[in-house]
Amino acid sequence: MSKEQREALDTLFRNGPLDVGGDPARQREVFTRMLTSRPLPEDVVLTPARLGEVPVLEIGIDGVTPEGTLLWFHGGFYVFGSARTSAGLASDVARRTRMKVISVDYRLAPEYPFPAALDDALAAYRALLGETGSGNPARIAVVGESAGAGLATALLVRARELSLPMPAAGVLFSPYADLTLSGASMTTKTAVDPSFTPDAVAVRAKDYMGVADPADPLISPVFANLRGLPALLIQAGSNELLLDDAVRLAARAAADDVPVTLEVTPGVPHLFQAFAAMLGEGDAALRQVTKFLHAAVTPGGS
Amino acid sequence: MSKEQREALDTLFRNGPLDVGGDPARQREVFTRMLTSRPLPEDVVLTPARLGEVPVLEIGIDGVTPEGTLLWFHGGFYVFGSARTSAGLASDVARRTRMKVISVDYRLAPEYPFPAALDDALAAYRALLGETGSGNPARIAVVGESAGAGLATALLVRARELSLPMPAAGVLFSPYADLTLSGASMTTKTAVDPSFTPDAVAVRAKDYMGVADPADPLISPVFANLRGLPALLIQAGSNELLLDDAVRLAARAAADDVPVTLEVTPGVPHLFQAFAAMLGEGDAALRQVTKFLHAAVTPGGS
Repeated sequence: MSKEQREALDTLFRNGPLDVGGDPARQREVFTRMLTSRPLPEDVVLTPARLGEVPVLEIGIDGVTPEGTLLWFHGGFYVFGSARTSAGLASDVARRTRMKVISVDYRLAPEYPFPAALDDALAAYRALLGETGSGNPARIAVVGESAGAGLATALLVRARELSLPMPAAGVLFSPYADLTLSGASMTTKTAVDPSFTPDAVAVRAKDYMGVADPADPLISPVFANLRGLPALLIQAGSNELLLDDAVRLAARAAADDVPVTLEVTPGVPHLFQAFAAMLGEGDAALRQVTKFLHAAVTPGGS
Repeated sequence: MSKEQREALDTLFRNGPLDVGGDPARQREVFTRMLTSRPLPEDVVLTPARLGEVPVLEIGIDGVTPEGTLLWFHGGFYVFGSARTSAGLASDVARRTRMKVISVDYRLAPEYPFPAALDDALAAYRALLGETGSGNPARIAVVGESAGAGLATALLVRARELSLPMPAAGVLFSPYADLTLSGASMTTKTAVDPSFTPDAVAVRAKDYMGVADPADPLISPVFANLRGLPALLIQAGSNELLLDDAVRLAARAAADDVPVTLEVTPGVPHLFQAFAAMLGEGDAALRQVTKFLHAAVTPGGS
């Protein structure tokens, strides 16, 4: 699609104010401002709530009766972001799929390192399963962006270990799924990734892992046994340090008999889907997400 | 989908008469009988022809005006098979996509080792580009099964090296794309692959490579630079020795900025798409192929 669109987005990222490796408190503000400066469409309804004692933000479209529930995990390297910073992309997906998003405000590092975020994700998922009506796992998908996609994957692995029912599907946008930072793209894509540097990512990885082993499969699900997980759709851009996180997660899923689709879009950065309004590739990717979720999530809850 | 369907297919393969590592002349007969015993639907029209001096079989559906051309490469480890043995799957895809298949009868090893098959593929592609009407590359996709998918990939790489125009897309069914046999699945999937053993595959790999280096990127395109290739759809089953050929080809494409979709279906064998009539997963996979080809191939030839 449009080379001009891609270049504009690349410039936007390269000149962005976020310093990924910088002071967490300060960069949280920058991150939040970046992701919430554009007003949401007027028909997006945000409703703060709690799910299993975990704060969440329900994101719906006015007038739409939801045909499923997307348990959503925002990005930000486990250090930045909130349920609110996911609202732009999440409301776009909610509109396209006619599903309700429940975006989880999991606790952030470095104040709360692993496994705090996973504990919160699990508590929210358990509570959702217990809810009347929307509690049917066939009506639920998990969705994550970046660190949130790594967290969503870890949640699925942990839920399987605990013999909880699996949701119908998982959608992983540009997953951050290897905190050992061992992917080849962590070095081969440094020049073309407009968003991050390996050094900055390494700073944030330390915040989350704390004293834990970064190769722990629940921290770095590229090393997890994924057997028993539901159908996964994994998307990434080729201009990403994290490209190989997506590729290796797909390889792992394939080896472990998980139905998996990997879609890599060339020449676009991390989380390009959030720019679907200005980028043809983003729109195309979200159309694939919509088809995937419609095929996987059962409206009737059968 | 149906566990019973999958088990029936697995049994069919396990009890099949083909001895992949056996005498080429004898096993060619078995292979051909296996793949041509079921009659084709009555409206399938087979027309032997030549394309750039290479024998081909045109496979069309009676009454359908083709909206594009699929240059097709059959499977059989570069030793078995013919344009005719691809007619079952190819006519199914021709019907679903409303496109014409031109299946290439490339020369086979061991009589004609590498690069004979690639030379034939290239001659056919060049001739197709030169044809009035169907010669527009935007109307052409390449499709390959197994060894034919490796050959289709090598053709794209070679065509790019020669600065020939790229076709609109490539569809790779269960690609055989690493004749060094170095994929992890070559050992991890031996128990679940009902079709092949690593020893048998090794015999056939030697037939094709002859005195050449099996790591030559035109023999084993998992090692090729794929930059500049068109959009690829790669499908595989998880019960395949060749699973990692598909996964690594997708990884290579992603790293090289090629638009790529990898779809892995769990619990099904090599080329399960050929059994779409009896296997829900095969039908689902071919529906994805159809959508992909419709999106990529321009009917008007613009």
